[in-house]
Amino acid sequence: MSCIVLRVAYDGGAYFGWQKTLFGPTIEGMLKAVLEKILREPINLQAASRTDRGVHAEGQIVNFTPKRLPGDLKKLLKSLNSLLPKDIVVQEAALAPDSFHPTLDCVAKEYRYFITTRAFQPPHQRHYAWHYPHPLEIEAMRLAASALIGKRDFRTFCNQPKKNSYADTVRRLNRISIDYVDDHLLSIQVVGNHFLYNMVRNIVGTLAMIGVHRLDKDSIPAMLAHKRREHAGVTAPAHGLSLWQVFYPKSEGAT
Amino acid sequence: MSCIVLRVAYDGGAYFGWQKTLFGPTIEGMLKAVLEKILREPINLQAASRTDRGVHAEGQIVNFTPKRLPGDLKKLLKSLNSLLPKDIVVQEAALAPDSFHPTLDCVAKEYRYFITTRAFQPPHQRHYAWHYPHPLEIEAMRLAASALIGKRDFRTFCNQPKKNSYADTVRRLNRISIDYVDDHLLSIQVVGNHFLYNMVRNIVGTLAMIGVHRLDKDSIPAMLAHKRREHAGVTAPAHGLSLWQVFYPKSEGAT
Repeated sequence: MSCIVLRVAYDGGAYFGWQKTLFGPTIEGMLKAVLEKILREPINLQAASRTDRGVHAEGQIVNFTPKRLPGDLKKLLKSLNSLLPKDIVVQEAALAPDSFHPTLDCVAKEYRYFITTRAFQPPHQRHYAWHYPHPLEIEAMRLAASALIGKRDFRTFCNQPKKNSYADTVRRLNRISIDYVDDHLLSIQVVGNHFLYNMVRNIVGTLAMIGVHRLDKDSIPAMLAHKRREHAGVTAPAHGLSLWQVFYPKSEGAT
Repeated sequence: MSCIVLRVAYDGGAYFGWQKTLFGPTIEGMLKAVLEKILREPINLQAASRTDRGVHAEGQIVNFTPKRLPGDLKKLLKSLNSLLPKDIVVQEAALAPDSFHPTLDCVAKEYRYFITTRAFQPPHQRHYAWHYPHPLEIEAMRLAASALIGKRDFRTFCNQPKKNSYADTVRRLNRISIDYVDDHLLSIQVVGNHFLYNMVRNIVGTLAMIGVHRLDKDSIPAMLAHKRREHAGVTAPAHGLSLWQVFYPKSEGAT
């Protein structure tokens, strides 16, 4: 048995996040509806990341196991994109073993967060970058970020619903890279295995406050030790965040 | 006497172009209305380029001469941006001599055109790049572009309204640069003094057709000699185009 794996890009601006909800349109809901229309059977989707309301993706990984495998994946790809709205695009479709699971099998995920520091936000960045019009000391941010790398308890950086308050909050962060894309546009790459609720946005908000010296660049170890959300910085807004890519072991055969 | 010069960025997607019209909202109309609200007097705007419907700008230059000069340009800038919609942003405001004219005084304008060649268009580029999903031979396009540089009669590249059919169509092109921004995103920079109606979009459409060998890379001199629109390639769509910057002699004191 095989499943079908999709690599999906979307502009999350118009959606209530990835996961199907009764409250409004979601990316999962749109994709499921279009797949069911094409394949004429009920489809259940699994995704590498349940991105929040307003968050974008360049490389979300999604899979499903249809009863009847479509013969031509290229044709499926074309049909999908012709029926999906322009803000959801399936970039690739491939076969994988039925045992493939986009969350459980992934070895790492990369998120990118964009911050624009210009006095007034350029119009074409308004949906894709946080407008934070302050000079940022990038070296202070990098130093602080280095204290987050490794296997740590990230409870401080989790906006946690109460029902999970006793859940395990230990995660591994592999890398945080902070670079200027141009004079006023900062890109923050965050790579790790699994992430807590709002973890990337809380890390970015904290690093931004360190960049303008509202928080100390050496304060990360104490923040982590406190294990309380209020010790970290603000939650950066959703529209600056994108699920950039998801990594799998090569043997898995996923895209 | 002094005038006020503004550097304006906009996402043209929602507008009927720069120039005020009865048919729908324009960038000039929005800016004029907000300036009149703040300065409480009738304002007449002059712009470096009357960008077409759907065309964007990073650095449109606009000026006006109010009866009473506002004392604080920084405050004016803040008021403007707080009242303007998010798709129009005034990046700078400065004083210039009253004799300044944004079109007549400019020594060159730079337009940028973006083409995405991926099979399916990434959602975040859908409003800012032409989706042309074919491999482009960039060297052929560069060779063809070089034949457009200099002072030439660009009648072939002008979508001309009848009333101007006897108007002078000789213009000077200083530079065309064609580069990949990333694997699938092409940027075409076009620098010249004054441009004919749809000239940049006709040049880009022609170069794209040369890039896929639907037109010959050596055909530009013959196209120019024909002086008829139908000898050039298609008109590239408006949403890939942006008025990038406008150049003035330094002595002019404009931004």
